[in-house]
Amino acid sequence: MQKTSRPSMMGFGMGFGMGYGMGTAPFFKMVVFEQEHFQGKCQEFTNECCNIQDCGFDNIRSVRVECGAWVGFEHHDFQGQQFVLERGEYPHWDAYSGSLAYHVERMMSFRPIYCASHQCSRMIIFEKENFMGRSAEVCDDYPSLQAMGWCSNEVGSMHVQCGAFVCYQYPGYRGQQYIMECERHSGDYQHWRNWGSHSQTPQIQSIRRIQH
Amino acid sequence: MQKTSRPSMMGFGMGFGMGYGMGTAPFFKMVVFEQEHFQGKCQEFTNECCNIQDCGFDNIRSVRVECGAWVGFEHHDFQGQQFVLERGEYPHWDAYSGSLAYHVERMMSFRPIYCASHQCSRMIIFEKENFMGRSAEVCDDYPSLQAMGWCSNEVGSMHVQCGAFVCYQYPGYRGQQYIMECERHSGDYQHWRNWGSHSQTPQIQSIRRIQH
Repeated sequence: MQKTSRPSMMGFGMGFGMGYGMGTAPFFKMVVFEQEHFQGKCQEFTNECCNIQDCGFDNIRSVRVECGAWVGFEHHDFQGQQFVLERGEYPHWDAYSGSLAYHVERMMSFRPIYCASHQCSRMIIFEKENFMGRSAEVCDDYPSLQAMGWCSNEVGSMHVQCGAFVCYQYPGYRGQQYIMECERHSGDYQHWRNWGSHSQTPQIQSIRRIQH
Repeated sequence: MQKTSRPSMMGFGMGFGMGYGMGTAPFFKMVVFEQEHFQGKCQEFTNECCNIQDCGFDNIRSVRVECGAWVGFEHHDFQGQQFVLERGEYPHWDAYSGSLAYHVERMMSFRPIYCASHQCSRMIIFEKENFMGRSAEVCDDYPSLQAMGWCSNEVGSMHVQCGAFVCYQYPGYRGQQYIMECERHSGDYQHWRNWGSHSQTPQIQSIRRIQH
């Protein structure tokens, strides 16, 4: 590699929490567009939207998240497939969806994930339903649960103690997404049917924290 | 949450490196199947395969990674779209592909990622080609580079100092994948055209370490 000066080297390790001031509540901001590639009708949101059609949109086809972590939903009223949305640009549905097998290009509602916190995220996963069987504490990101020692390609139940997580059907953060938050259901997800209205299987092979 | 006994609580934080003995080289093992859902002709691999057709396969449609981290390629001789494969089960193409926009159901070659190391992974990303412009050190997982303070949705060039990383086109580990290794090209990736034979854009919005 060529030697270059690094006048603006950033300390990424200390960068968490940027985007809002110390001691203040995190700010949420997302701009949604009716057409792909940030074209057509658009609107800025700083809070939840339970039905994009009430705002005069037919559908959302691209998204720019400017602050905070959000979750988008396939249907209105926060139903159906879930998509975690962190800061950055999503020029089309393919960019924010996780599941290719179930290809429905719709995002009809969304809301901020208020309890997302990279600094303090902890949950317990259990082998069986109702918090039974073998268990493990999760407080980091795990692209492969099995590589970390988990016993199978399934998780029976979960309890989020603090922060928020996204669980994925396949290794490497792929496939169906399930957003798990300490502030929902008291952090208890005792059966895969509670993971979301779209969940059809207990299969979970990777888990990561959601951060602002 | 119900109170339950936890007879086999695992310390995930100390679990790295499981799957091979202390002080020995990591072991690689992957089983590939010609049909989806682990059906049809299958073969076990512990080393690279530059053309699956030379092994009598028409294509690979499901994969079970039992040890180590691998990279799969769309074409033979390690060309075309790249797919990082960590321990776990991938029952169909949708489960290991990252890009929905470019939907070609092929994996014709693959190889172990020997230098993957979760404990020691570090690279420098640069704003412009040829290691110029602003830079940042990356030694963790970043689902949103912009949330961590990176200046844009693009990366101009990269130098991997140790370990291996996977860079993604979109936030949240989605979209096209680019595997970056300290042992390839001396860790130097000075232009997006060097990221892989499939790369068509400098757009990178999330980066994570690859681990065994």
